[in-house]
Amino acid sequence: MTYCVGILVKDGLVMIADTRTNAGLDNISTFRKLHMFEVPGERVVAVASAGNLAAAQAVVQLVSEGFEDETGVHTLYTVPSMFAAAQLIGRAVQQVFKTDGPSMEAMNARFDVMLLLGGQIGNGRLRLFQIYSAGNFIKASTDTPYLQIGEHKYGKPILDRAVRFDTDLYDALKLGLISMDSTMRSNLGVGMPIDMMVCNRDALKSEIVQRIDHTEPYFQGLRQSWSDALSQAHRAIPRPPYTGNSEAQSTD
Amino acid sequence: MTYCVGILVKDGLVMIADTRTNAGLDNISTFRKLHMFEVPGERVVAVASAGNLAAAQAVVQLVSEGFEDETGVHTLYTVPSMFAAAQLIGRAVQQVFKTDGPSMEAMNARFDVMLLLGGQIGNGRLRLFQIYSAGNFIKASTDTPYLQIGEHKYGKPILDRAVRFDTDLYDALKLGLISMDSTMRSNLGVGMPIDMMVCNRDALKSEIVQRIDHTEPYFQGLRQSWSDALSQAHRAIPRPPYTGNSEAQSTD
Repeated sequence: MTYCVGILVKDGLVMIADTRTNAGLDNISTFRKLHMFEVPGERVVAVASAGNLAAAQAVVQLVSEGFEDETGVHTLYTVPSMFAAAQLIGRAVQQVFKTDGPSMEAMNARFDVMLLLGGQIGNGRLRLFQIYSAGNFIKASTDTPYLQIGEHKYGKPILDRAVRFDTDLYDALKLGLISMDSTMRSNLGVGMPIDMMVCNRDALKSEIVQRIDHTEPYFQGLRQSWSDALSQAHRAIPRPPYTGNSEAQSTD
Repeated sequence: MTYCVGILVKDGLVMIADTRTNAGLDNISTFRKLHMFEVPGERVVAVASAGNLAAAQAVVQLVSEGFEDETGVHTLYTVPSMFAAAQLIGRAVQQVFKTDGPSMEAMNARFDVMLLLGGQIGNGRLRLFQIYSAGNFIKASTDTPYLQIGEHKYGKPILDRAVRFDTDLYDALKLGLISMDSTMRSNLGVGMPIDMMVCNRDALKSEIVQRIDHTEPYFQGLRQSWSDALSQAHRAIPRPPYTGNSEAQSTD
């Protein structure tokens, strides 16, 4: 399993990914799923991946080293815009499907790869895209400023409630980490260490690119504070006032 | 979609179910999914269902009116123990599968029905069971005092963090309602009104059997307080201290 989240706010972009992979519950490993493609002053691009690890690695390899299609040879270091970057990843996904999809299906393995692409190139706008297994994609908007891939449900409630386009960039990072914490608590398939990147809008370079492991004091503190705050929050809500049976007892 | 949760604590049992059903996004209805089988002083039994509505209704019908199998004719009003009640529901599920499963599969509809069964009968213990589509079942324990069926992920983090076997009964109700609220916010397929039942251990009667709709003031207040408390909680966590790039910029 995997959990990755991208949050695009007024001031910038946050991307966070866990590193746990598993082939069955008895084969658990750590692999980087957040990849940076950065030339400070010119482009800052990050890609996070979920789904079949071999397919995801093949896609990242193709867009790192370049591959030839009808439009020539491109990499995430050469594409002229974020839209072109999303198209490139989409074509890479389709190429990997063409190569490995049929034989995966023959082994009853579903071809399943999802990617988040975030960043800014040249004079273009800061963007966040989600690319599907079919190679098509959507982009985050001011209405829906975050996108998730992988095990997205456990960490969604806090984002639904708290993330807006005008949320402060470091609050967005904090909320992304809370969302990651909720996911890790409920699904063992999502685990530490966590990779993250933060960039400011129009900076054309990353502000933070960092890995957090379980000994990192801020994240430990955040987990504890959040837990304590939730306990306090539900204790502060008054006891339900319901009494007695307001319903007929029949089953219908 | 559906969300039902049962919480079995030291002092009693809480069961909560939503009422929304949908056959596609364009066909949404309200159906009761929490059914009471109560003879005060003798037995208090509640059944909540998720999955295919026709199958769930058929199962509830069978265990209400009785059906004949190798052990005779029984209903939830006649079985001598909660274990026998779980077995009865399991056999009812298997019977419905035998009747409708093959033709459902011919229509490409998966036979999918899950039930929660909670309550206490006579001198037996207060129990909470989850019955699967195959008719087999598990029971809640002091280690894992809650069970969920349907859209369980959004509402699980709060239960994972806060529900223990020694949680106060009315706190368990509150936490169940918070869990339901989180689910309804993130999945439109789960919706008001909500049915709930609470019974005290060894009372052999329900304490509360009630339906809550969107105008009900306590639940409205709980939703608002919880939202406010979460906002406050994440604002109270200090800003992440991360700065700079602690990682090489390469993709591998």
